[in-house]
Amino acid sequence: MRLAIDASQGVRGTTSPNPPVGAVVLDASGEIVGIGATNPVGGPHAEVVALAEAGERARGGTAVVTLEPCNHHGRTGPCAQALVDAGIAAVHYAVPDPHPMAAGGADTLRAAGVAVSVGPFTADVERGPLRAWLHRQRHGRPHVTWKFAATIDGRSAAADGTSQWITGPEARARVHADRARLDAIVVGTGTVIADDPWLTARLPDGSLASHQPLRVVVGTREIPSTAKILDDAAPTLVLRTHDIDEVLAALADQDDVLVEGGPRLAGAFLAAGRVDRIQAYLAPALLGAGSHAVEDAGVQTISEALRFRRESVETIGDDLLLNLIPEK
Amino acid sequence: MRLAIDASQGVRGTTSPNPPVGAVVLDASGEIVGIGATNPVGGPHAEVVALAEAGERARGGTAVVTLEPCNHHGRTGPCAQALVDAGIAAVHYAVPDPHPMAAGGADTLRAAGVAVSVGPFTADVERGPLRAWLHRQRHGRPHVTWKFAATIDGRSAAADGTSQWITGPEARARVHADRARLDAIVVGTGTVIADDPWLTARLPDGSLASHQPLRVVVGTREIPSTAKILDDAAPTLVLRTHDIDEVLAALADQDDVLVEGGPRLAGAFLAAGRVDRIQAYLAPALLGAGSHAVEDAGVQTISEALRFRRESVETIGDDLLLNLIPEK
Repeated sequence: MRLAIDASQGVRGTTSPNPPVGAVVLDASGEIVGIGATNPVGGPHAEVVALAEAGERARGGTAVVTLEPCNHHGRTGPCAQALVDAGIAAVHYAVPDPHPMAAGGADTLRAAGVAVSVGPFTADVERGPLRAWLHRQRHGRPHVTWKFAATIDGRSAAADGTSQWITGPEARARVHADRARLDAIVVGTGTVIADDPWLTARLPDGSLASHQPLRVVVGTREIPSTAKILDDAAPTLVLRTHDIDEVLAALADQDDVLVEGGPRLAGAFLAAGRVDRIQAYLAPALLGAGSHAVEDAGVQTISEALRFRRESVETIGDDLLLNLIPEK
Repeated sequence: MRLAIDASQGVRGTTSPNPPVGAVVLDASGEIVGIGATNPVGGPHAEVVALAEAGERARGGTAVVTLEPCNHHGRTGPCAQALVDAGIAAVHYAVPDPHPMAAGGADTLRAAGVAVSVGPFTADVERGPLRAWLHRQRHGRPHVTWKFAATIDGRSAAADGTSQWITGPEARARVHADRARLDAIVVGTGTVIADDPWLTARLPDGSLASHQPLRVVVGTREIPSTAKILDDAAPTLVLRTHDIDEVLAALADQDDVLVEGGPRLAGAFLAAGRVDRIQAYLAPALLGAGSHAVEDAGVQTISEALRFRRESVETIGDDLLLNLIPEK
């Protein structure tokens, strides 16, 4: 499926409006009797799944949820009322719902005599499974991760243009596992022309994962009609613009967007202040020549350097994965 | 003091020929009664220092030493015989002495009825305090560390040439503490002309450390007579060559040599296979332009990438320090 539209149009309904929530129900003695996770569009919320598994054993029990139970009458009915109806006595949730329509679930619970508390893993859940969803609720645009792989001297390809592979098999497997959880992957036309990437999420055996992110190509250069990215393995959106905010407007209904490159597209996102996280895969190797991970990020002198806070550093096989967050 | 000589001459006697050894003496009950470390040129060895502190309590005791006690009659007499004379009953040493003149200490000890064992921290000591000394004993040339500081996109200066500072104060303090343990620091004439570095080891208050490494300038360009590197704070050697093996021959009596840059000098050491360790200080920052940490390392295509083994990764303030060892 190819969606060739201009950047002024959005893409609606391609991803779930439901946040990726987890819920656990314990009975009155503290034993786990139900576990749920949010299903795709229109499916039941995590709380409803966990309550269905628990059945009558939920009565007098406790629910532990990553997000404040919703209060609105959407496709699946309010979760707060479902918890009351099931006889749950106490609810712990990690993160208050920032969404004006859904918020108020805690009030409904308290009014029905349910004990309600927030925490203790608020920060972990905000940085973890709810990061991108919360970001879009709060900022009105997708959460943007820029991912790159480079040698420790910042090269993403050798002098002759070859780049397979900079990083090792463990890091490449991690990239594919992450893709299967993303809403969209963005590359520039230059990357499509130079590398002809497929941009699909593959399992270790090479087969396609069950969820594929939307493939997005940004730029005004013509891409070949034979480009792999235009096949039927996943939807593809071609945005004929260089304006980063036009790109994000077209992706307004996506939560979790990954920018993969090339260096000038990454530079444009960075210069526009539209990178919310960097995932830097650094290989213990040197090239000393070849193309860079990023170019033209709008920095002329050292005092203008783009500075980041280290959220985590992890070894993956021979490589390092740094997660960095912009300093505000 | 400035030593301006050609590269065919060596510099003799500027550093200690003694390995940096540590020794601990325990009495017969296992209590520590003496601790010693190797002194500068001509001073006593670690074992002699520890035995002197222990006195009569060494009799029937145990000595734990990082290096096999020496057997040769140098300036300070053989340590193996000193341990026998002191009545030591058992000696543990981490690393056998690779030096033909000094080896045989273990045989002398055993012949005198002392129990001798090797280990258990052999690898730690070989990688740690004895790394550079052992390297010179085994390979006949100094151990070369290439140190660089860069952003995660591999830039060592911004587009306008500014580079103070890429890394944070904690990383810079570590660099100075390391300098005070080095034998020599090597830079190219280009770095002297562009940055006018002082290349001294300073304490946190800015004053000079008690030991200063030899400052070495490599290259054929004229450096200004006002260069800071030519002052009296430490000795300086100017080598008018681009041949890396001529540089190392001139430094044949040094154990522990640090190459600091610039990018082409680093590339020349790497292309010649003369880098034994990389210390990469990586700042969580991006520049997207500016000069590179390394250039012209002799790599044309990805299969020729210089690959390294990760020996350690450490966070220092906001920065990362990677220690990398060449894959043989």
